[in-house]
Amino acid sequence: MLHLYDAPRAPSPRRVRIFLAEKGITVPTTALDLGKGEQFSAEYRAINPGCTLPALVLPDGRVIANSHAICRYFEGTHPEPPLMGRDPVEQAQIEQWTHQIEEQGYQAAATFLRHTRPAFAERSIPGVRGGFPQIAALGDHAKRLLTRLLASADTQLSAHRFLTGETFTMADIALLIALDFGKRMEVERPAHVQRWYVEVSARPSAQA
Amino acid sequence: MLHLYDAPRAPSPRRVRIFLAEKGITVPTTALDLGKGEQFSAEYRAINPGCTLPALVLPDGRVIANSHAICRYFEGTHPEPPLMGRDPVEQAQIEQWTHQIEEQGYQAAATFLRHTRPAFAERSIPGVRGGFPQIAALGDHAKRLLTRLLASADTQLSAHRFLTGETFTMADIALLIALDFGKRMEVERPAHVQRWYVEVSARPSAQA
Repeated sequence: MLHLYDAPRAPSPRRVRIFLAEKGITVPTTALDLGKGEQFSAEYRAINPGCTLPALVLPDGRVIANSHAICRYFEGTHPEPPLMGRDPVEQAQIEQWTHQIEEQGYQAAATFLRHTRPAFAERSIPGVRGGFPQIAALGDHAKRLLTRLLASADTQLSAHRFLTGETFTMADIALLIALDFGKRMEVERPAHVQRWYVEVSARPSAQA
Repeated sequence: MLHLYDAPRAPSPRRVRIFLAEKGITVPTTALDLGKGEQFSAEYRAINPGCTLPALVLPDGRVIANSHAICRYFEGTHPEPPLMGRDPVEQAQIEQWTHQIEEQGYQAAATFLRHTRPAFAERSIPGVRGGFPQIAALGDHAKRLLTRLLASADTQLSAHRFLTGETFTMADIALLIALDFGKRMEVERPAHVQRWYVEVSARPSAQA
């Protein structure tokens, strides 16, 4: 049996939930409350020593503890509908967008929050968040990265329904997650990105 | 015809060269000199407006401008030997290691260099590197990330010849690139990582 460890309000676990909903896959799931620090319990540490979420326990007991890797696993076990590309060119385009979104969207949002939000200034977990101070200039830099990403996405979405063409893929999931995660950055969405955002946010999977 | 744009001394293009060498694939290649700023020429901008390397021009003129995505393309067109996994579990494990190495190894090395090397303090390209100052604490944090990654890799390599088992994969390429890119961090390699490093560095592909 597969078992998924989830965290309802965190961005990476949502990536997996949307992916599973698009595939029509149901997996037995345990939801941990990050606010209560349940990810640091001895019980969860025994499953995922890194204390991150999500984590997927495979039937043989091995654990996949990265949201992209969990999606890759289900793309292999449940190929339909393909969310990571139907041929090598699509696969490469989706991989390219996903990397670009991770760097300029998702990581930028994490950097922004880490360096601008009071809550993150107070919490400093050695070896996890590190002990360095908040640096406002890095928050500004993160906003510039996201702005650049959205300009690039807007060009693509001016010609296509979705990021890599006429089919919804992992790249769309990645951008949706990054935008919602980074909403406090208050970077204005260009027109085509906004049209796309409204459409993908209305998909049933986005509520997963 | 495919055409690859390469940069001989940069880490990301080397990822692609090693991948191609392991697959036994030869692609017509143009090498640009980053030291001379050839990536900013009007000619290359027309191919890849982001001015990054590597970039692969596909037969239909489309461009894949990310090293992971270029490798994904060739994994699809030339499946043997598989470097991204033979089944969903292997594929997920390789994806997980690759992401972890990117974050705690490759990006950590980039952060370290950006925040500690005089050469990077002097070069500040608006919108590309950003205009923020060097922050020594971020260099220290990057070293902690790499130390943690190598401890995790050492556990794996104490039980297996390569990072994800007995077969050389994309994950091994990613770690080799990250360690060579981050050599100025001077983080000591644990014993099993060192044994692995000597072995993979001696593969013919590592000289590509």
